[in-house]
Amino acid sequence: MATPGYHDDKAAILARLKKVEGQVRGLQRMVDDDQYCIDVLTQVSAATKALQSVAVQLMNDHLSHCVANAVQTGDQAEADRIVVEAGKAIERLVKS
Amino acid sequence: MATPGYHDDKAAILARLKKVEGQVRGLQRMVDDDQYCIDVLTQVSAATKALQSVAVQLMNDHLSHCVANAVQTGDQAEADRIVVEAGKAIERLVKS
Amino acid sequence: MATPGYHDDKAAILARLKKVEGQVRGLQRMVDDDQYCIDVLTQVSAATKALQSVAVQLMNDHLSHCVANAVQTGDQAEADRIVVEAGKAIERLVKS
Amino acid sequence: MATPGYHDDKAAILARLKKVEGQVRGLQRMVDDDQYCIDVLTQVSAATKALQSVAVQLMNDHLSHCVANAVQTGDQAEADRIVVEAGKAIERLVKS
Repeated sequence: MATPGYHDDKAAILARLKKVEGQVRGLQRMVDDDQYCIDVLTQVSAATKALQSVAVQLMNDHLSHCVANAVQTGDQAEADRIVVEAGKAIERLVKS
Repeated sequence: MATPGYHDDKAAILARLKKVEGQVRGLQRMVDDDQYCIDVLTQVSAATKALQSVAVQLMNDHLSHCVANAVQTGDQAEADRIVVEAGKAIERLVKS
Repeated sequence: MATPGYHDDKAAILARLKKVEGQVRGLQRMVDDDQYCIDVLTQVSAATKALQSVAVQLMNDHLSHCVANAVQTGDQAEADRIVVEAGKAIERLVKS
Repeated sequence: MATPGYHDDKAAILARLKKVEGQVRGLQRMVDDDQYCIDVLTQVSAATKALQSVAVQLMNDHLSHCVANAVQTGDQAEADRIVVEAGKAIERLVKS
């Protein structure tokens, strides 16, 4: 398996995901404790934003490593493929 | 503490949040295993959508119970307050 | 036709939509003038946010007038229907 | 001024923006005619999605032309700058 684009940020990304996991466990405690809907919703928005920030960091790493490398090899078909693939991932992020 | 609007859906919401927690733990395993950026990003989009679905369910429950109850009491100031509060929560969701 | 929930904000909402129309015409001029992709994208994000703000205002007005009125009439089936309808509109906004 | 990344798609992007302009003008007519909040909101969601699709197309063109070209020149500082710039634009799109 090739080195992923986020290799140098791996610890930071794992720490962010660990924090999101904590937010989602906290949400379960809030619901279990019958906390007020709006307070739960505020925390759902915070967890959603945290996940989106992870996505933005992964995409930046992907562009600056995987996409840049594919372009630099000079293999135009592979460069085209990886750019189309990145575009579809951006579309999923924008529409989620 | 009053009964929250999601009282009757509590088990379903906890099950959804448990599933999101599993998705976020799966994301950590993917990153730990150096899986391909785009595959990780696809799963981040799935977890984000799952969290948004929880938010939509919580908001529906909040409108049909808490907001409806506040309106029915006939206390106009309280009804106005809870509608403004719901509007702000919707804004946070739309912008997250 | 019944008075819509946004009746009192009609002038403000029309002014916001007129401004969005101006932003979208400005986008056409930018593209026609071959302006830099990122500058065009920045303006697309601004127009998108402006449309979302219109949506939030329309939804607030809808909750505080149409939904509140339906709940106050005491017709439970109609109140349920309008709350479900509002929930679906919120879902469309959150997912767009 | 350099050729923008969307050069080959210029007619298609202008046609999409023209359609969005029509949607926003249609929204003004709906509000002017006091149409039902939910019907207006459905059209706001449609216009928002149409704008996001324009953004995705612009970003794809930007990646496959401007970013790819900057990487291929071999000027690492310029390649880094344009990748960071693209990442910030993606972040604005994801958060709008």
